[in-house]
Amino acid sequence: MPKYNFSGGMPDPVSFPVEGLIDAAQQVLSESGRTLVQYPDEHGYPVLREVMVERFRKNNDVALPIEQFALTNGSMQAISLINQYFVQPGDTVISENYTYSGTLGCFRQYQANIVGVETDEDGMNIDTLAETLSDLQQQGIKPKFIYTIASNQNPTGTRMSLARRERLIALAREHEILVVEDDCYADLHFEGEPPPPSIYKLADFENVIYIGSFSKILGPGVRLGYLSASEELLSQVLSFKIDAGTSNLSAFIVGNFLKDHLWEHVATVNRILKEKCDAVKDALSKNSPSAFERWTHPTGGLFIWVKLPEATDTPRLWRMLDEQGVRLAPGRAFHSQDQEVPYLRIAFGFPSLTDIHEGVAVTAACVLECQ
Amino acid sequence: MPKYNFSGGMPDPVSFPVEGLIDAAQQVLSESGRTLVQYPDEHGYPVLREVMVERFRKNNDVALPIEQFALTNGSMQAISLINQYFVQPGDTVISENYTYSGTLGCFRQYQANIVGVETDEDGMNIDTLAETLSDLQQQGIKPKFIYTIASNQNPTGTRMSLARRERLIALAREHEILVVEDDCYADLHFEGEPPPPSIYKLADFENVIYIGSFSKILGPGVRLGYLSASEELLSQVLSFKIDAGTSNLSAFIVGNFLKDHLWEHVATVNRILKEKCDAVKDALSKNSPSAFERWTHPTGGLFIWVKLPEATDTPRLWRMLDEQGVRLAPGRAFHSQDQEVPYLRIAFGFPSLTDIHEGVAVTAACVLECQ
Repeated sequence: MPKYNFSGGMPDPVSFPVEGLIDAAQQVLSESGRTLVQYPDEHGYPVLREVMVERFRKNNDVALPIEQFALTNGSMQAISLINQYFVQPGDTVISENYTYSGTLGCFRQYQANIVGVETDEDGMNIDTLAETLSDLQQQGIKPKFIYTIASNQNPTGTRMSLARRERLIALAREHEILVVEDDCYADLHFEGEPPPPSIYKLADFENVIYIGSFSKILGPGVRLGYLSASEELLSQVLSFKIDAGTSNLSAFIVGNFLKDHLWEHVATVNRILKEKCDAVKDALSKNSPSAFERWTHPTGGLFIWVKLPEATDTPRLWRMLDEQGVRLAPGRAFHSQDQEVPYLRIAFGFPSLTDIHEGVAVTAACVLECQ
Repeated sequence: MPKYNFSGGMPDPVSFPVEGLIDAAQQVLSESGRTLVQYPDEHGYPVLREVMVERFRKNNDVALPIEQFALTNGSMQAISLINQYFVQPGDTVISENYTYSGTLGCFRQYQANIVGVETDEDGMNIDTLAETLSDLQQQGIKPKFIYTIASNQNPTGTRMSLARRERLIALAREHEILVVEDDCYADLHFEGEPPPPSIYKLADFENVIYIGSFSKILGPGVRLGYLSASEELLSQVLSFKIDAGTSNLSAFIVGNFLKDHLWEHVATVNRILKEKCDAVKDALSKNSPSAFERWTHPTGGLFIWVKLPEATDTPRLWRMLDEQGVRLAPGRAFHSQDQEVPYLRIAFGFPSLTDIHEGVAVTAACVLECQ
């Protein structure tokens, strides 16, 4: 275990609801434990799917039927199934130029041609997307889908504006391209106005696959994510989910905890995330601009995206940080073209406030050393 | 829920260790719950993998290193990953002529050409396998693998003899074909001599992928299965396991229960299975040979395979059984070529002794009605 762990999209361990889950386990195993000798429902444990419905309702003001939600082994299985169904080697997919490393790894495993679209503080630049789509069209290439993390983006911590969401939908319709909206950081909102409605909702649930997760409000160790889409799209994506269902033991416990404690738990998580995010920004300021040129100002999610001085010897920096016990993710891990870039991602959910201050200071010293 | 449920490979619900799992959940969540904010180990929770090692050691007298075991979302994900890696549409795979319906469904989803090899009370007929392999060779076809459930076979409840296991290995070597050994019913052994060592062990762990499961000694609802193979084969099969790991919440609880209670729990399960298996055979005898011509005599596993009179109108029988609240699996579900056949599979793990006697009697009456 590194001393300062800013590496993964992990929530705060102290707020992890140990007692709540023990109580839920005791209750649900007493009442329904014996049903674990049976296979799970094809689309997952209904109590947990009701929680998905409730999360979506709160953020989008629409109560979708639970039939439109299917449980997966984390959101990563959902992404993997989408790739398996839609992507043949050499097919083109579009994403933000910086995006989730797990998704990029999956694209590469399926031998997709990844086209990254530049982003700024308002998310994907839609003018660039329009040019990209039209360039591809001229080459006779129809992308399989546009993958976007519109809210609390990983790694940049930005949020796509409402206007851009609407333009993205219009472009996807014009080019008849599927949109895959990864909304794993939904509900992790700790400052200012809530994010705009999801692209899925704004597109009237047409030609969009929506991905959610319980990893970010609870923990990736539970491996519970989900998909929502039209009946046709859902059945296409699930056609390769040949795993006899997602763990009912895990779903029973998490479902029975969250059905009673969802918003109360989310409020706790967000209160802590705001403190930690502020602590990172504070620590970054103390070493700016010499070590940290600029960084994003997330209002939600788990990540701050930091620009280092151009002259930074980044390969040396990553080695040095490793030696100093600082684990964080180099920009390259999120770059659609796998390029070495002077950026780093600070994931602030896991470390304590003290570790944030110390760890960022150690990082700053290393950055200065690597000029 | 049907009144008489003989349908799935489910263990006995009464022996399901509700209290043991509650205790394990309480203990492991208190001690390690907060680590659920992190991703699982790539190959799964080490405590549960130690249980895999122990199960294999007991039956095969070899203590494999835990690095050789990888946790999956039930054995079905293991089967699915093997197909995804090895099978392209039109590729040939070999299996017992009657085999697990889930595996057959997976083969079909990957558009494999399934070649079934006839079986008898000693498992796959190896003379027929030899002919099949040589016929295929003459056609220039090299099968991707031979899939076999050598012990306590599903659906037939038979066991491949040691001599046949050794001949199968020799043939696979001669033709340089991978063997996939599905040993999900390992440890479900309730009568007579234990099964011979696994093909995996007999082949000195070369060119065999071994599949195990906790579904059958505990319950499919936990979704915990596993793979074992050489380092190279394991990494090939896991290359498409892009799901960020199998549930630690499920693995923590099951692992911490089984590390202390494995053999004691298995003994309980087997005692009950023997009673139930005897009850089925007794009930079948009462209606033999008029309704039930013959059946297998399992010494382990969860299934009895029953031959109906040739003249049975089987489609009518399945409808009638459904109306009578009897759920069992028609032979066709397990037929490699999806043919309507006068067989049925009785899964005896789930129903009570009373339901077994009543349900088999109802089934007999329906069979007689359908002549």
